[in-house]
Amino acid sequence: MSQQPTTPTSELKNDRYLRALSKQPVDATPVWMMRQAGRYLPEYKATRAQAGDFMSLCRNAELACEVTMQPLRRFDLDAAILFSDILTIPDAMGLGLYFEAGEGPKFSNPIQSQADVDKIGIPDPEGELQYVMNAVRTIRKELKGEVPLIGFSGSPWTLATYMIEGGSSKAFTKIKKMAFAQPAVLHKLMEKLADSVTSYLNAQIAAGAQSVMIFDTWGGVLSPRDYNEFSLQYMARIVDGLTRHNDGRKVPVTLFTKNGGMWLEDIAATGCDAVGLDWTINIDEARRRIGDKVALQGNMDPSMLYASPQRIEQEVADILASYGQGSGHVFNLGHGIHLDVPPENAGVFIDAVHRLSRPYHR
Amino acid sequence: MSQQPTTPTSELKNDRYLRALSKQPVDATPVWMMRQAGRYLPEYKATRAQAGDFMSLCRNAELACEVTMQPLRRFDLDAAILFSDILTIPDAMGLGLYFEAGEGPKFSNPIQSQADVDKIGIPDPEGELQYVMNAVRTIRKELKGEVPLIGFSGSPWTLATYMIEGGSSKAFTKIKKMAFAQPAVLHKLMEKLADSVTSYLNAQIAAGAQSVMIFDTWGGVLSPRDYNEFSLQYMARIVDGLTRHNDGRKVPVTLFTKNGGMWLEDIAATGCDAVGLDWTINIDEARRRIGDKVALQGNMDPSMLYASPQRIEQEVADILASYGQGSGHVFNLGHGIHLDVPPENAGVFIDAVHRLSRPYHR
Repeated sequence: MSQQPTTPTSELKNDRYLRALSKQPVDATPVWMMRQAGRYLPEYKATRAQAGDFMSLCRNAELACEVTMQPLRRFDLDAAILFSDILTIPDAMGLGLYFEAGEGPKFSNPIQSQADVDKIGIPDPEGELQYVMNAVRTIRKELKGEVPLIGFSGSPWTLATYMIEGGSSKAFTKIKKMAFAQPAVLHKLMEKLADSVTSYLNAQIAAGAQSVMIFDTWGGVLSPRDYNEFSLQYMARIVDGLTRHNDGRKVPVTLFTKNGGMWLEDIAATGCDAVGLDWTINIDEARRRIGDKVALQGNMDPSMLYASPQRIEQEVADILASYGQGSGHVFNLGHGIHLDVPPENAGVFIDAVHRLSRPYHR
Repeated sequence: MSQQPTTPTSELKNDRYLRALSKQPVDATPVWMMRQAGRYLPEYKATRAQAGDFMSLCRNAELACEVTMQPLRRFDLDAAILFSDILTIPDAMGLGLYFEAGEGPKFSNPIQSQADVDKIGIPDPEGELQYVMNAVRTIRKELKGEVPLIGFSGSPWTLATYMIEGGSSKAFTKIKKMAFAQPAVLHKLMEKLADSVTSYLNAQIAAGAQSVMIFDTWGGVLSPRDYNEFSLQYMARIVDGLTRHNDGRKVPVTLFTKNGGMWLEDIAATGCDAVGLDWTINIDEARRRIGDKVALQGNMDPSMLYASPQRIEQEVADILASYGQGSGHVFNLGHGIHLDVPPENAGVFIDAVHRLSRPYHR
């Protein structure tokens, strides 16, 4: 690892992830996995059982720290990511988050009208959401400078889909009805969400997050115009409002819109440091289009982890060759790891990235 | 309407749809809606109740004809589309199609192994699938040459997702496991499906379908390489094997891959006549990229039909302006009409396309 003795981050033993996001030279391509702390790990299931329900696990800083650390004990990962839920903000707004077995998240008080939007406030990150900041502080201490900690939030559009649909959705008919029939009401909600996400991520940074990521899981269900109007402009506003330096080092921001491959130029133009890619685009094309402006994160199909070790290694080799020489690539899956993947296959993947990427960094 | 007295199709009273697919001049942009016969229409629900379950409706040529005709009685549509299910072929292969309330289609005998693939044969379109051909013949007669009849099939990849997952899916883990761990088994299945779809569509053409469309609803969940390998190459094989002229006229083929906006060039290169677009791409960009090779079908977000008549008309005007002057555009929604749309809004949409498109055809 390259040393930077003049800045406080020199205390990081492994800073490949942060260096790649700034396109500084690295010895090997850094790698982490979306949902790397999760149900595919038996030790996660044990801790989850100990906590009781899912939100109790999120609300307990010690246990949230424990599950954050679990994949790092198994695998040579280059970053940790805060263990938390994507819907903490709407929950703190009073929408009543709950989980039904096999059905995903639900809200008992979904947003249905202008009056509902007027009622909600901006949650205090060191108030209702302090449990998240406590988890960040606990994890950061426990990491002991081994690897950087990534904080995160759902994007305003993605949060709004759950808040208005009342849970997961296929066709997003309620939020689109609002977008097309009452756009002013939806924009009012998006403004409150953008302010909430900004304050939430800044508090995570203040608590110790060394990088942040915004997950726009559902931006890809919009037309290009509606994506810009209802999702991207609010992510851009958040990027503008973030604390971008802390502790003597830049805090990089990654934006990830699933199914956003056609809009990479617009995403890169927000001022973010990196763009997350799902597997529906070749990374060489993404690099050609935006790789001079930003770093790229991705992009192996998570289902590849069902294949044989040889097939996984071949896929890693193909993606590394597609990206090509030089820094600016953070290897990842193109979406969260599936819950029924054998953990040893994740290990094959991570080791292959490190081993096979060295020739691209000479 | 332009007359072509030397060919048998001159008997079509309205041939805008077929002319637009061949980029011949039209007086107005033709329009139809995916799932135009369906649950948003009260008269459909009445016929469906009369038939009993969904497959009984599909298997009854008179009732399938009745629901095909229903939207044409209400709206000034430029094409009829065969009323049938997307999963008739796997059902005829013996997989045991059934529907569970609120859960979508299921198969009691999903494909799990090489042995399962070996067991299935190519269904005889005038045998197990004769009920579909009977519906085509009945509808064609009932249409009395008013508008052309579109036949259709699911794409091999899309059919295979249901056959292997056993029903609808979110992450498509079973079929991807097969694609990455046992690709030869999956290719064997795809070959059988490509042969089955070719023979099925040719039989529809022989029975009277004047145009055919292949729905690749789930091709967009693949990487570019896997899309080419497991979905597009089999659609291309089908296009090659189709009867392309019948009754003295070309039988145009439309390919539609949902979330396929990044791969339009590859889709257009199959030799199809038209490419269907969902709403995640601007039609001006699609025309710039492939509109000299093929016609384009699409592409209004179906959720726009929740908005006010004024907003719907504005959206139609925007898409028409985006496509610009000349023929080669078949207006449609970017996916099937939602079941809770007010029918009168569909009427506003269809009338707006005809009224507002005339200036683009002078």
